[in-house]
Amino acid sequence: MAGSPPPAHDVADLGLAGDGAERIAWAAGQMPVLARIRERFAAQRPLEGVRVACCLHVTAETANLVRTLLGGGATVALCSANPLSVQDDVAAALVARDGVEVRARRGESLDDYAAHVLTLLAAPAGGPHVTLDDGADLLVTAHVRGGDALAALLGATEETTTGLVRIRRLEGEGKLRCPVVAVNEARTERALNDRHGTGQSALDGIVRASNVLLAGNTIVIVGYGWAGMGVAERARGAGAAVIVCEIDPLRALEARMAGYEVMPALQAAERGDVFVTVTGARAVLRREHFERMKDGALLANAGHFDVELDLEALAEIAAGGVRSVRPLVDEYVLGDGRRLNLLARGRVVNLAAAEGHPAAVMDVSFALQALSVEELVRRRGELSPGVHAVPEALDREVGRLKLEALGVTIDEPPSEGAATSIG
Amino acid sequence: MAGSPPPAHDVADLGLAGDGAERIAWAAGQMPVLARIRERFAAQRPLEGVRVACCLHVTAETANLVRTLLGGGATVALCSANPLSVQDDVAAALVARDGVEVRARRGESLDDYAAHVLTLLAAPAGGPHVTLDDGADLLVTAHVRGGDALAALLGATEETTTGLVRIRRLEGEGKLRCPVVAVNEARTERALNDRHGTGQSALDGIVRASNVLLAGNTIVIVGYGWAGMGVAERARGAGAAVIVCEIDPLRALEARMAGYEVMPALQAAERGDVFVTVTGARAVLRREHFERMKDGALLANAGHFDVELDLEALAEIAAGGVRSVRPLVDEYVLGDGRRLNLLARGRVVNLAAAEGHPAAVMDVSFALQALSVEELVRRRGELSPGVHAVPEALDREVGRLKLEALGVTIDEPPSEGAATSIG
Amino acid sequence: MAGSPPPAHDVADLGLAGDGAERIAWAAGQMPVLARIRERFAAQRPLEGVRVACCLHVTAETANLVRTLLGGGATVALCSANPLSVQDDVAAALVARDGVEVRARRGESLDDYAAHVLTLLAAPAGGPHVTLDDGADLLVTAHVRGGDALAALLGATEETTTGLVRIRRLEGEGKLRCPVVAVNEARTERALNDRHGTGQSALDGIVRASNVLLAGNTIVIVGYGWAGMGVAERARGAGAAVIVCEIDPLRALEARMAGYEVMPALQAAERGDVFVTVTGARAVLRREHFERMKDGALLANAGHFDVELDLEALAEIAAGGVRSVRPLVDEYVLGDGRRLNLLARGRVVNLAAAEGHPAAVMDVSFALQALSVEELVRRRGELSPGVHAVPEALDREVGRLKLEALGVTIDEPPSEGAATSIG
Amino acid sequence: MAGSPPPAHDVADLGLAGDGAERIAWAAGQMPVLARIRERFAAQRPLEGVRVACCLHVTAETANLVRTLLGGGATVALCSANPLSVQDDVAAALVARDGVEVRARRGESLDDYAAHVLTLLAAPAGGPHVTLDDGADLLVTAHVRGGDALAALLGATEETTTGLVRIRRLEGEGKLRCPVVAVNEARTERALNDRHGTGQSALDGIVRASNVLLAGNTIVIVGYGWAGMGVAERARGAGAAVIVCEIDPLRALEARMAGYEVMPALQAAERGDVFVTVTGARAVLRREHFERMKDGALLANAGHFDVELDLEALAEIAAGGVRSVRPLVDEYVLGDGRRLNLLARGRVVNLAAAEGHPAAVMDVSFALQALSVEELVRRRGELSPGVHAVPEALDREVGRLKLEALGVTIDEPPSEGAATSIG
Repeated sequence: MAGSPPPAHDVADLGLAGDGAERIAWAAGQMPVLARIRERFAAQRPLEGVRVACCLHVTAETANLVRTLLGGGATVALCSANPLSVQDDVAAALVARDGVEVRARRGESLDDYAAHVLTLLAAPAGGPHVTLDDGADLLVTAHVRGGDALAALLGATEETTTGLVRIRRLEGEGKLRCPVVAVNEARTERALNDRHGTGQSALDGIVRASNVLLAGNTIVIVGYGWAGMGVAERARGAGAAVIVCEIDPLRALEARMAGYEVMPALQAAERGDVFVTVTGARAVLRREHFERMKDGALLANAGHFDVELDLEALAEIAAGGVRSVRPLVDEYVLGDGRRLNLLARGRVVNLAAAEGHPAAVMDVSFALQALSVEELVRRRGELSPGVHAVPEALDREVGRLKLEALGVTIDEPPSEGAATSIG
Repeated sequence: MAGSPPPAHDVADLGLAGDGAERIAWAAGQMPVLARIRERFAAQRPLEGVRVACCLHVTAETANLVRTLLGGGATVALCSANPLSVQDDVAAALVARDGVEVRARRGESLDDYAAHVLTLLAAPAGGPHVTLDDGADLLVTAHVRGGDALAALLGATEETTTGLVRIRRLEGEGKLRCPVVAVNEARTERALNDRHGTGQSALDGIVRASNVLLAGNTIVIVGYGWAGMGVAERARGAGAAVIVCEIDPLRALEARMAGYEVMPALQAAERGDVFVTVTGARAVLRREHFERMKDGALLANAGHFDVELDLEALAEIAAGGVRSVRPLVDEYVLGDGRRLNLLARGRVVNLAAAEGHPAAVMDVSFALQALSVEELVRRRGELSPGVHAVPEALDREVGRLKLEALGVTIDEPPSEGAATSIG
Repeated sequence: MAGSPPPAHDVADLGLAGDGAERIAWAAGQMPVLARIRERFAAQRPLEGVRVACCLHVTAETANLVRTLLGGGATVALCSANPLSVQDDVAAALVARDGVEVRARRGESLDDYAAHVLTLLAAPAGGPHVTLDDGADLLVTAHVRGGDALAALLGATEETTTGLVRIRRLEGEGKLRCPVVAVNEARTERALNDRHGTGQSALDGIVRASNVLLAGNTIVIVGYGWAGMGVAERARGAGAAVIVCEIDPLRALEARMAGYEVMPALQAAERGDVFVTVTGARAVLRREHFERMKDGALLANAGHFDVELDLEALAEIAAGGVRSVRPLVDEYVLGDGRRLNLLARGRVVNLAAAEGHPAAVMDVSFALQALSVEELVRRRGELSPGVHAVPEALDREVGRLKLEALGVTIDEPPSEGAATSIG
Repeated sequence: MAGSPPPAHDVADLGLAGDGAERIAWAAGQMPVLARIRERFAAQRPLEGVRVACCLHVTAETANLVRTLLGGGATVALCSANPLSVQDDVAAALVARDGVEVRARRGESLDDYAAHVLTLLAAPAGGPHVTLDDGADLLVTAHVRGGDALAALLGATEETTTGLVRIRRLEGEGKLRCPVVAVNEARTERALNDRHGTGQSALDGIVRASNVLLAGNTIVIVGYGWAGMGVAERARGAGAAVIVCEIDPLRALEARMAGYEVMPALQAAERGDVFVTVTGARAVLRREHFERMKDGALLANAGHFDVELDLEALAEIAAGGVRSVRPLVDEYVLGDGRRLNLLARGRVVNLAAAEGHPAAVMDVSFALQALSVEELVRRRGELSPGVHAVPEALDREVGRLKLEALGVTIDEPPSEGAATSIG
């Protein structure tokens, strides 16, 4: 790109490009699976001429995915799935060094964000062939706008459960117009991203924001999907006593059999020192819960959107006022003097208060993303509109590359391919 | 039954019926989910006139399933899925107190076993309407024999992965003639039976047989399906260092991410103090592995059939002879003096050396069995031949009853039924 | 011993000697540390002419200690520290094959037991030079009787906390007349016996007696010394939710920091599915606790004496009667129909319902015992009356031998012997 | 202090005092045990006229200790035990708001540090009555200088194992001139600081510096004292496979029995993805180890001094150069292209890359410190020169206050004070 003028962009400071490049290079070293795919893409150029629009967290790891797609021949534009997670130096490096159209600034307003989404869908060269979403904003907006935004669309990928809920609603209403690969339902993804990535990074965010000692404390985890399970495992591993709240009886049973206490949230509200929501639902902790909590309780959200804690209700009951006590801790003082500490303003704590998923996790997610984009392009016209699972062969391929990256060797299956594990 | 002569039977000693009745009563107290279903069955009699043939482990827990089916109106005949797991007193009680045709003796020969299977299929009153299998012997034999054995068959249930492999082979060949409910693939089953039931009881069997201290030892688990995962969790929880061998890259990755060492079995052979196979496959540990093992290594199988350890190869290399050193431990002395200790003659160690799954586990399995039988009868003629999942409503119902039994309360879902757990 | 007549003895059946010999040989294979010491003793004969009296659990492991002492030149007599733990075949083998005076029968009465203790102290050849106790009965009785019972006594060893409490009381009153080595306070002992031995075997006893599934249950552990800590670790490792009750604030804090719930016993009484006492104190669970327990609760004691559960109170409130529901389970029915299940009649559950500590644990305990006896003899006249720690050199020697037995190699310390671990 | 001129000081920027005061206030809320003591000190003024010199980490938590001592009547001066751990805003607040003589700047040179130590010992008003050390620098320097530095000294406290090694060497040489309270050997300290504080914060520092995903990685922990044990527990709890290296056979055995792999460091060097030293010794990982490590290995030190990794040797073998890849990660490229990543330049990683121990941990340490200072003053002249344990009554008092702070209630001991935990 040396010598080219930078493309259209909206980033904080192109002067940060050097730092960003260094950060991207470090992350690259942590993403060996994606590296293998990048090498192949560079040789085979399977995405030649494909326009990709991404609404993802703008981080060093995402930059490596973007560079993999570029290497495969695609043109890529990028905005941020979360204003608080933008690494401005990375945004700068992608623009200045790689010629990517990036529209993302840390802390940008919701209006700016909405404008960026629209800009990506209304590119002068034509709407995207493929969208990559972390929350379905590009895809849903394209469907709402229709026209050029949708005209070229071959397919999409989605990274979150939250996003899939939205997409499946669209599908249920008969409005979905292209195939969507549910990346986060792949088994390798489950094995790493939701469980281990969120598990580690959500607690990491809580500790960084508050410097709390988890050992000896009681942590209440609301929601026991894969991510909640991961947070619960790590919290127990950190010496906390763990309480799980879950409305699905099968998941509640799994939590109980794993040794956790399981109870209704109102009851847990009185017991917890730290609360984490991981549900994808709105206001799972609300006024009735806040009112029962202990002085000094910490409140964090590890779900995609900042709606799981009812922040309005929290503000309403803070008769004693609100003050910032650490950069990412706001203390709400209730009428009776009890203090509730909100972390990262209720935004997804692993991104807002830590660095999000470790590169090793994103390595797998983004390997799945890259291969899914290739699959959508390769099989254009073949796949029906609707949500599709990541093909198992692709999933196993990523699993194999990841084991290799971890230095783990396993036995080959016997030739006859007999079943080999019970249960 | 007071006063009635006992039905046709082949059990060890009817004089044991008193002990058996006591044991069945104790197990009943541990099976509250099944109890709830038994109450309903007694009131509604949904199995009136249905002939059920069961090839299951003849234990106190199975007796409670049998009594639930009887209470629902069925006629039941029972043989044993494993000659070493028969509780002779329970067999006696079922015959003498409940009028069940039981054909099972602890330690019976394979010939006797085969004969019992045939007898159940060729009942004078007509072949079974429903079969319940733990390894598919009844169902497969019925298909092989055809004729009367198959004529009345409405459907079947299967409890094991091993059995499903056989049944799916039949299905693949286009020969399966009835619907089969895959009980062990239900989520409640997974949550309890494979993972927690086998996890606890396999190690329990190993400790009872050998009195080994697990802490400080290295345990090698071959196969990381649900059951292998359970054994691994419990072994780590007991203070052992755990090595997993697995040929499926996705499962191998899951094991590695859970913190276990993962490696080829040949390499693990040199490291282990205790070996457990849980694969469903044949000869997963064989001569090449045995030859590398340490003096004093313990060998156990937790898979359904006694084929996972290559016992012939073990005998061949035992140049120094074989001797019994504890009731369920045979010591094989290799040419160089190393001793390998085979537990429970390679039979499924949780049944052969302990009491099998705790009643609390079987409570869920058998609740699923009972409801699946009801479903097969209720929907007779509706279900196509082939393997069917346990209907989700039924699965959730069992989950709900089990939570209730554990004394766990959970929140109700909000009315709109939004997604509530991430990942 | 071939050809010699058996010595004076009181065992159940000398005909069991063959089985006993086999069991002792198997245990020997599990006790490599003791084996190394036995070899040295046989060569050096450090106990020539020494009379040793042992009041220990009469098991295959103890037999190997006895044979080590014999090999060192001692004369040994043995009675049983617990009537329920006697392995009659082992007792027979020691008499018939090794010429040991054994006075122990499984299930013997307390009167018989008391008589055996006296007989050992009043041996025709003179009172013991060294006593080995598991509960201090020999040593305390010798002090009470005085005279010949005490005349020859050079020193004693004690294996339990309970015993040391009694001995220290004697010491505090100025009445202790000889040095006593506190074997159970050695670090190797702590690292294995209390924590890992009791941890595994207490739960093993509970599971064997009741066949309960620990996962999903709440287990209440009363007492958080080393043994209670071990039970708590294993219970959590088995998937149970763990509650600890402890009156010492430092231990309570340690339990809480380890992630357990900590609360008063009255409150825990309402929560537990399984209760285990490990305190060394009397009636720690009593009427007020029993009255609050849930239907079906299991009650077990893992302390040395059967006094930790108030059995009289339990009988008093069982208005609905008591019945045996499994060999080692008695069901107490309260007035309102709730059932409490007492395991192993309140006796130490790992011995009464399982095989006690695994041989690998006893290997270390008994290696310490053997070396402590040697030390007492070697330094006769040097050591003041009072409780003495196991000398550190001896403790490290056992640690080194045990690591060797586990196949673990470690680095040598640098020559200057600098500190090498923080904290 | 309003209106008073600031005392003599050497801090980075007094303008940061506002931020510092906020940070101190937040930490105060996390230190309820110290708060209780501060209240009593303010009422009783037990330190009236006492000059205290502290060489501790200059953090918000330390500021709360300093304010407790001030409240008790003492005059306090403070320098920093580690140039990288200074929170400049806290230093400023202590000077500007509390009138404390602080001499500490983040990143100060070793020369500056040495000068600060001397200045504190040569205060115009006279040498300190009591020193508080985290590494023994004040106390050892006072002994080396003698004269006024030592003249007034009543006693000292020490917070680290490393410091105690130095002090005991002094004691062994007959040169120690005052009583020293070994705060870090108190049981409450052990229960929190070394094990839980270092356990959580060392891993936290590693993750913050590198954003590594611990799950699936192999972590090698060199040194299995209390701190190493804590790091091992947390690493396993985070999903890592853990290898322990330890030269003390008793500790090595404890690690093995806890389920960790234990091996010599040379062998572990080939296996680890992450290495942490926690030994207190010099060059425990050195050239021979570095040369065997895998590409991408992370190297961290959690010991007090930056000597545990042989940094000179690391530089020597970095034929491919060294470059900074993240703020706290330096990449050393070996001749064959392998890259080793040094975290936080080998300085104590929990302080240099994270916030050090959580306030909840320091709460207990500093409560012990405050009570120890009071004890030294109260018993002046009574205590002999030498290292003294924290009196048990004081230890239990802190335990009791800490449980109270955690909201945990426990049973009272029975009046007769019988033993209540086994083992």
